[in-house]
Amino acid sequence: MTFAHLAISLVIILATAKVLGELSERLGQPAVLGELIGGVLIGPNVLGWVGDSEVIRLLAEIGAVLLLFEVGLESDLEEFLRVGVAALSVALVGIALPMTLGYGLAMVLGLDGRGPIVPLFMGATLAATSVGITARVLADIGHLQSKEAKVILGAAVLDDVLGLIVLATIAGIAATGSLALGSALTTGLLAVVFLVGAILIGIPLAPYALRAVGRMRTRGKLISWALVFCLFLAWSAERLHLAAIIGAFAAGLVLAKTDDQAHIKERVRPLADIFVPIFFVWLGFSVRPQLFNPAAPGGWHTILVAGVLVIAAVIGKVAAGYCARVPGLNRLAVGVGMVPRGEVGLIFASLGLSQGIIDVGLYAVTVAVVLLTTVITPPMLKWALAPRKEEIR
Amino acid sequence: MTFAHLAISLVIILATAKVLGELSERLGQPAVLGELIGGVLIGPNVLGWVGDSEVIRLLAEIGAVLLLFEVGLESDLEEFLRVGVAALSVALVGIALPMTLGYGLAMVLGLDGRGPIVPLFMGATLAATSVGITARVLADIGHLQSKEAKVILGAAVLDDVLGLIVLATIAGIAATGSLALGSALTTGLLAVVFLVGAILIGIPLAPYALRAVGRMRTRGKLISWALVFCLFLAWSAERLHLAAIIGAFAAGLVLAKTDDQAHIKERVRPLADIFVPIFFVWLGFSVRPQLFNPAAPGGWHTILVAGVLVIAAVIGKVAAGYCARVPGLNRLAVGVGMVPRGEVGLIFASLGLSQGIIDVGLYAVTVAVVLLTTVITPPMLKWALAPRKEEIR
Repeated sequence: MTFAHLAISLVIILATAKVLGELSERLGQPAVLGELIGGVLIGPNVLGWVGDSEVIRLLAEIGAVLLLFEVGLESDLEEFLRVGVAALSVALVGIALPMTLGYGLAMVLGLDGRGPIVPLFMGATLAATSVGITARVLADIGHLQSKEAKVILGAAVLDDVLGLIVLATIAGIAATGSLALGSALTTGLLAVVFLVGAILIGIPLAPYALRAVGRMRTRGKLISWALVFCLFLAWSAERLHLAAIIGAFAAGLVLAKTDDQAHIKERVRPLADIFVPIFFVWLGFSVRPQLFNPAAPGGWHTILVAGVLVIAAVIGKVAAGYCARVPGLNRLAVGVGMVPRGEVGLIFASLGLSQGIIDVGLYAVTVAVVLLTTVITPPMLKWALAPRKEEIR
Repeated sequence: MTFAHLAISLVIILATAKVLGELSERLGQPAVLGELIGGVLIGPNVLGWVGDSEVIRLLAEIGAVLLLFEVGLESDLEEFLRVGVAALSVALVGIALPMTLGYGLAMVLGLDGRGPIVPLFMGATLAATSVGITARVLADIGHLQSKEAKVILGAAVLDDVLGLIVLATIAGIAATGSLALGSALTTGLLAVVFLVGAILIGIPLAPYALRAVGRMRTRGKLISWALVFCLFLAWSAERLHLAAIIGAFAAGLVLAKTDDQAHIKERVRPLADIFVPIFFVWLGFSVRPQLFNPAAPGGWHTILVAGVLVIAAVIGKVAAGYCARVPGLNRLAVGVGMVPRGEVGLIFASLGLSQGIIDVGLYAVTVAVVLLTTVITPPMLKWALAPRKEEIR
């Protein structure tokens, strides 16, 4: 890719994100919905104005990492611990219920032609939660400091750890044909140790590190070292098979406890302003509206399978939301906030394809389900969080 | 490239840039010198901690574009016009003299075995100026608002247009064996029309555009649209065979005249803080210290040829600096500021290689000359700009 090609791609992506994001806000929806739809439109499957290149993908992933870093920076660790039990129950039910529903429905829809591994895998895909879109919607509508946001974000982090165990288990079954729960649990334990360790070691050490940075003379020292820390934890998380965004979130949580929190946030903001929309536009790239053409061969079947799975995906997570026992909590909003599968679901789907668990047709359906849950969340979450008569105290 | 690979590469690049940049400043040198040396060390030719991938190159080019965008944002167009004649004479002599010197020395060194095209090409490579490093040094030592900075930046822009004509001419000779000055001049004229047109049309329209942006509601609207404008002009410049950084500089000049200049500058800064060091570290990647090993076969010959050409490169530009007739101007500093060939020289060299004008050996020498002029400039420029007894008024 030449620089000229990258430059014009970024011009198209950013301009589309801003125009459709603006339109979305004017229509009373979060800006992120416009960005997603913009991505579908300019992406390779519709207008083809921008190709899905490696560079755009990596810039998009930087965007996801910066988004969760920023969310971490604006969060208070104590508030998470206070809703810890609620978040854990939401995460556990939010994994178990969609898995069961997905497994059952896949059996009913006759997707078990190649053995129980396919229904099992479809269930696992429905269990994954991507917190990116919810974090963005909560930020868009100014709800990031709410109790609901804490439960959702806390549950999403736990969900990622639990999802990791599920994924490792399923991949193990696919590879060896037998259940190796031990190694899957080891993977999960390692992830927990990393997260807890990074935060417990990071919080007492960060003030010393920042004092050293403060004594430096070069320009941009604070944002540079903050980003080095964020990217290092993102890399570590990926190395432990966690999502990079979980590492970035942990880095944000650590720096949120320091005196420089406000300065770091202020400097991360323009970076996030540019990179985060690239992520959501890029997410839209993989949507293939052609699949849902009822006139095309197999079109109705695709619509049916995808529709049933989307409904299961929504019901599973919304029900999980009602398991959070916190007084005055908008539990519907918590459940809706857990609905999007986003990039985590896409990772699951592409892993299933590369490991030969699912075929190309089922892969397309899985991607469609993942993206439908992502696109319906912004308006649903906004609606769920709107103040209602009986809830106004 | 996986995201984990990119993340750890960026961690290494940014940490190296900050540590060696800091060291450089503590030793009384501009931070950029440390970044360049850091790039040599961690790059593929020495330690090999970071590979020279497409993604890193593109991020580096974004850095160069952001650097010149920022310099443009801090510049006043009128001040450039005021030193226009001086800048033009520096640019003209700065092209003619190094070309003549390079041509003559290449003949003396016996590089005309394949006809006069090789000496001609070596001369053209010595004529190119890269303003990136000088702009960065001037910013590092707080001299961006000086008269010298205006002459250097103005001359560098003119230099790029003139260099474009020279390059088009030489490439034409190499391709057809005959001189096609007409088409080369057309290329140059087009570039001038673009630059003048972008600025003349941009300045009256920018306030209206920014007023429209001001009425928008989405987050990050100002930085997003400013960057869209910058990248669009960078892309346009590349399409007209100018350097992308010239387009970015023009975009900065246009926005510098608006009421939002300070806000835009403030938001571009963290982006530049992250990307600009990536550019300079990446520049260091292509240095191959192995070539200058006197014990290696041909080592002494390489050192001799490179040394002679570097001296010619410095003398040519320093003499050009003395052609600037502006009262009270530090003409030595102007000449030194024109010395670095940077990425423009690298583009020349790789074009010469791909067009078969020079062979791999001569390519290596050309790259070495380009990079030596880049590495020696920061300390030389700092020294040239230091106040001297006879100059203190």
